[in-house]
Amino acid sequence: MSIQDTVDKIRKGDIRVVARFIRKIDDGDEDVCEVLKELHKFSGHAHIIGITGNPGSGKSTIINNLIRFYRTKNKKVGVVAVDPSSPFSGGAILGDRIRMQEHSNDPEVFLRSVATRGNLGGLSASTSSIVRVMEAMGKDIIIIETVGVGQDEVDIIKLAHTTIVVTVPGLGDDIQAIKAGILEIADIFVVNKADKEGVEKTIRDLRLMLELKNRQEGMRTPPIVTTKGITGEGIEILAKEIEEHRSYISSSNIDRYLNARRDYIEFVDLLKSNINRKIEKIIESEIGNRSELISRFENKELNPYNLVENTIKKVFG
Amino acid sequence: MSIQDTVDKIRKGDIRVVARFIRKIDDGDEDVCEVLKELHKFSGHAHIIGITGNPGSGKSTIINNLIRFYRTKNKKVGVVAVDPSSPFSGGAILGDRIRMQEHSNDPEVFLRSVATRGNLGGLSASTSSIVRVMEAMGKDIIIIETVGVGQDEVDIIKLAHTTIVVTVPGLGDDIQAIKAGILEIADIFVVNKADKEGVEKTIRDLRLMLELKNRQEGMRTPPIVTTKGITGEGIEILAKEIEEHRSYISSSNIDRYLNARRDYIEFVDLLKSNINRKIEKIIESEIGNRSELISRFENKELNPYNLVENTIKKVFG
Repeated sequence: MSIQDTVDKIRKGDIRVVARFIRKIDDGDEDVCEVLKELHKFSGHAHIIGITGNPGSGKSTIINNLIRFYRTKNKKVGVVAVDPSSPFSGGAILGDRIRMQEHSNDPEVFLRSVATRGNLGGLSASTSSIVRVMEAMGKDIIIIETVGVGQDEVDIIKLAHTTIVVTVPGLGDDIQAIKAGILEIADIFVVNKADKEGVEKTIRDLRLMLELKNRQEGMRTPPIVTTKGITGEGIEILAKEIEEHRSYISSSNIDRYLNARRDYIEFVDLLKSNINRKIEKIIESEIGNRSELISRFENKELNPYNLVENTIKKVFG
Repeated sequence: MSIQDTVDKIRKGDIRVVARFIRKIDDGDEDVCEVLKELHKFSGHAHIIGITGNPGSGKSTIINNLIRFYRTKNKKVGVVAVDPSSPFSGGAILGDRIRMQEHSNDPEVFLRSVATRGNLGGLSASTSSIVRVMEAMGKDIIIIETVGVGQDEVDIIKLAHTTIVVTVPGLGDDIQAIKAGILEIADIFVVNKADKEGVEKTIRDLRLMLELKNRQEGMRTPPIVTTKGITGEGIEILAKEIEEHRSYISSSNIDRYLNARRDYIEFVDLLKSNINRKIEKIIESEIGNRSELISRFENKELNPYNLVENTIKKVFG
């Protein structure tokens, strides 16, 4: 298929072409750049929402409720799940997966999970380009779900225009569970399961934390929204806060910076996956695959350090 | 300092030399291979314990109790914290950090946290070599702490001889919170905070999960140990189970495979950080730093895809 054909079919939302193209992105295929270059021209219209929080905080239920809300407004929705425990990526228990199915027959809702790809690849390398594809498909709202721990997750959330951090009352030392870096980039906090004991304390702790962070004057203070995951209570308020944040970043031109930052992240991601793929090929073809190498290490035929030096020589000459 | 000098001083546990060398590992310095090659000869004696679990599950308290236990047996202990929310890596609240201080004046306890290093680097790239250094320092027990979510974390835990998964009662859909990949590699389960409501249910859920996993016949079934983090109850039983697992892998020769797998992981880690460093240098010197690139993207002077293609050409010719 020609580049133009691929671009056209992605824009029309042809699921098979989209799926095949995303697979190419995942594989670190060099050819994807040509298509992405064209798709990039049609991006910049979607609002990208990052949702992060610990496993068990109810992110997927909130996302489910948000999808339902946006669908009643006739918005097209894309979801990228980067959380390995997410039901969207098949990692969670049955009940959640059934909840997700609600949207699986809706052609205007596109779900995609991001998996790891090989030894040298990272979890996140293709997320930025997948978001680009969803924009080109004409999605109005794109939700990125990540778990709130790990540097990869903090990096991915920087793709979002609006970052939502979900917490729940009584999750151990709950505030402790939120990585400091995430707290700083939160645009909206959600305290979910607001019918659970301890909700007041959680809100108080969050407020205290925000004050301690000594936010600079004139900076926007992130609102705290309470939701009840299962009943959907609070979702309209959350959607309103998202909309307000969207107006805020657009009127202050912050969105221009955020979009440029997305370009940068995508540049690094694509570079990473391209290079990793090249190196994996060199290792596989000239040195050996994982299990071959492990048995050669076991038999002391090789040592890891000489192998690094030799591989570097092979790659960089 | 000559290679031999560095090796000797690391073996003697000279903290300043160790710290400087670990910094070089973190930086992806090429020279580290020569030293590591020598250190490798002195490795293979330590028992490496991986501890993983969600933030708030009390991993750090358990580690603290294990350190105390092993110190009463006169064992030398090293800890590598790869969990960004860990008090060992400075990410947690004050109370935890104070608890950690208990061991900070003990010269036979060496704590080290692993941070992220630059845009192209991963969280984990240097862990395997840091463990190698701790072995050469003569540590008997090396504990790796990671958070139980994210592919990076699953990869790191493969450095361990014995993998412990910590969970607590009532952590949302608690079992859901444990990544499937982690469940499969657990050698011991710990249900911490065993005075909390729901402990019986958590144990039952774990047992069910293990049965559902349909473990092959003849395979070892991971024991479930209950602990009460703060009182230290259960730590001796945990230590006994660790010792039993150690005998098991040694008598079945599994340890030889695990050590070879460590070599492989270290090979990939060192290769990654070496190559990432080279690429970062090329980008910085020939293309621009992060904020320069972001403003050029903002001004539409550059597009991420051409930049990928050009960088690949520069790196690989």
